[in-house]
Amino acid sequence: MAQLLKVQNFTVSSDGFGAGEGQSLERPFGHADPSRLMAWAGATASWPNRTEPGGTRGLDDYFTRDFNHNIGAEIMGRNKFGPQRGPWENHDWQGWWGDEPPFHTPVFVLTHHLRPSFTLSDTTFHFVDDDPAVVLEKAREAADGKDVRLGGGTATIREFLDAGLVDTLHVAVSPEKLGSGTRLWESPEELTDRYHLEVVPSPSGMTHHIFWRK
Amino acid sequence: MAQLLKVQNFTVSSDGFGAGEGQSLERPFGHADPSRLMAWAGATASWPNRTEPGGTRGLDDYFTRDFNHNIGAEIMGRNKFGPQRGPWENHDWQGWWGDEPPFHTPVFVLTHHLRPSFTLSDTTFHFVDDDPAVVLEKAREAADGKDVRLGGGTATIREFLDAGLVDTLHVAVSPEKLGSGTRLWESPEELTDRYHLEVVPSPSGMTHHIFWRK
Repeated sequence: MAQLLKVQNFTVSSDGFGAGEGQSLERPFGHADPSRLMAWAGATASWPNRTEPGGTRGLDDYFTRDFNHNIGAEIMGRNKFGPQRGPWENHDWQGWWGDEPPFHTPVFVLTHHLRPSFTLSDTTFHFVDDDPAVVLEKAREAADGKDVRLGGGTATIREFLDAGLVDTLHVAVSPEKLGSGTRLWESPEELTDRYHLEVVPSPSGMTHHIFWRK
Repeated sequence: MAQLLKVQNFTVSSDGFGAGEGQSLERPFGHADPSRLMAWAGATASWPNRTEPGGTRGLDDYFTRDFNHNIGAEIMGRNKFGPQRGPWENHDWQGWWGDEPPFHTPVFVLTHHLRPSFTLSDTTFHFVDDDPAVVLEKAREAADGKDVRLGGGTATIREFLDAGLVDTLHVAVSPEKLGSGTRLWESPEELTDRYHLEVVPSPSGMTHHIFWRK
């Protein structure tokens, strides 16, 4: 079976923004409140960062449960990895996720400023400055036959969409507006020339948008 | 984490029947047409019996994709295993599934007529004549820390529900009526005293019912 490139559990506001303006160390999602944007996922039993038992096992849990299913590598943009811009001042920053990142696979970080790979628990971060197709080729090789997750943010997803490399997307649309920030789309309909789209409202208030290639 | 007992992708007619009347070797679902009852699952990319590439990757695919996720054993009733009733005339019958059953784990078949265990590919069938709680204990031990699937049919699911042993249920309700057969419920509302229920219509016409313990 082919190795898919998949966007999973990517969450945007009702007006299409994946993060707010003004990302910083203190505010990884800029003026957007990630605890509100990602509340739907955090409520589920299968949320990777869950530390206590419990959580819902309804529709939303199928999406969080699927997060690591047959995934062998992730590709992410530098702004998902950290708030720094330009050349690295040092290599102390190792991502937002502490000693146990939720990826458990190789992760390829797109950046014009390379640095050495490093490993935290069972996640290894590599830094690459290549075209999307080349990065995908590296990630597929590292994924060892499994699928590759495209982790975001919005600019990275757009770049891979524009290159025609994305096979499936699951985007959870929140009922709340952000007003400004980094935009995934004006409307999900922009993708329906190339993708099937199913729109599935969840009892949580989110609206799951599931795309796969035509 | 606890080992759950889960009903997954169990399909019933709009009037609550999991199979028709008159099961036989030629008609495993009695007068019901399994190709119509299970068409929603067969259309998906992740359907375990799929032999050709393709298939949908929308909402329904999340359910078929989840079928083997963290499952370490299955429990099924004798009528899911085969059409025979009473003592075995011989042990030639090895289930409906050919040389590559879709389970890939130990399977515990409930029957008053024991016979020796046997293995087909990576599925081993065991035959047990015990109370549900004892069968579940055996299946959990065989599952080696993973969850246990309760595969049906309806009588087996009812038996484990009545014993209070089922943690989650996913039941796909078809828009078509069967009129008679083996019944899972008069109405899904029967379970809402003990279970949360989310009702999720699918673009395929099925209505997914997702239950988890209160």
